Amino acid sequence: MNNVIEAILSRRSIRKYKLDAITEGDLQQIIEAAKYAPSGMNAQSWHFSVIQNREKIEALEAVVYEALKGSEDPYLKKMGELAEFHYFYGAPVLVIISNAANSISLSPVSDAALAAGNMMLAAQALDLGSCWIHILTRLRDEPGVKAALRALGVPKGYVVCSALTLGYPDGPLPKAAERREGTVNIVE
Amino acid sequence: MNNVIEAILSRRSIRKYKLDAITEGDLQQIIEAAKYAPSGMNAQSWHFSVIQNREKIEALEAVVYEALKGSEDPYLKKMGELAEFHYFYGAPVLVIISNAANSISLSPVSDAALAAGNMMLAAQALDLGSCWIHILTRLRDEPGVKAALRALGVPKGYVVCSALTLGYPDGPLPKAAERREGTVNIVE
Repeated sequence: MNNVIEAILSRRSIRKYKLDAITEGDLQQIIEAAKYAPSGMNAQSWHFSVIQNREKIEALEAVVYEALKGSEDPYLKKMGELAEFHYFYGAPVLVIISNAANSISLSPVSDAALAAGNMMLAAQALDLGSCWIHILTRLRDEPGVKAALRALGVPKGYVVCSALTLGYPDGPLPKAAERREGTVNIVE
Repeated sequence: MNNVIEAILSRRSIRKYKLDAITEGDLQQIIEAAKYAPSGMNAQSWHFSVIQNREKIEALEAVVYEALKGSEDPYLKKMGELAEFHYFYGAPVLVIISNAANSISLSPVSDAALAAGNMMLAAQALDLGSCWIHILTRLRDEPGVKAALRALGVPKGYVVCSALTLGYPDGPLPKAAERREGTVNIVE
């Protein structure tokens, strides 16, 4: 099978990581892959905050928990009670993708997603694992989370659109979830 | 270089296509790649409408022009005056990606973008070209466009989130646009 398609089909969401840091060379390739995603109007108005410090990632996780516990949204509040859940899965690297609020792109959220997708596939190609993370997008406007994100490098005037963890998978890759049937129509 | 990363870096937006149809085998691989994108909550609540009929693609283009000309948005109205512009670039295949309005995913737009991204990379890996298309997302609520999209298979209750063209590039690949500097911060 074509290597690229093989990487696409074999990528899994990895939720358990080894403690090992990822190499500088691998990280640079993954970042380069992100920058080569297409963007609406070729805006490239994204920003990548790459957190390579496990203590800082855990500190962000603690801020996330505080925001969840204090949330007025019952769904989020309930998530705040899952004290044993690690939103960033103990990964050695967390990447936060934001996009300029005043981007000329009409599709800033999709642009960030495509950059995240390139990173996840590049990681797979380098025998690294990744997991797409939604909690920061959901909580980005909570004051504590907002301040923490800013402190980690999300620029002023940028909106967090996507995030992902990176690291070496600890254990075998999980099986792919079954694919939904009936999601395609062909017009000839 | 790793083949996957090479594909990511060498993918270009292709805006000129040969007349040749793409093979059934290639199309199936590209669709399979789309289905293996990650999705929020593993919702897989997307739908892919694959238009392989050039006349029907041109007919949709005509509907797009009508909607642009009749738009109250001055920017869109101005686009409607570009009578020589082909929004789907004469491609033999147009894929419209929609997502369920009532998806359990918190990120239906990003999910559709990741599926589109997988398709664009799979196309690149198969020596096909692709271009990400935004005009349908922009015009999806215009009555004429909405009806045309439904007629092409976009299910009721689904929202068009992304689209792309596919086909064999006519001519050499364009050079990559320069990448923006200063888009990364590393926290150690």
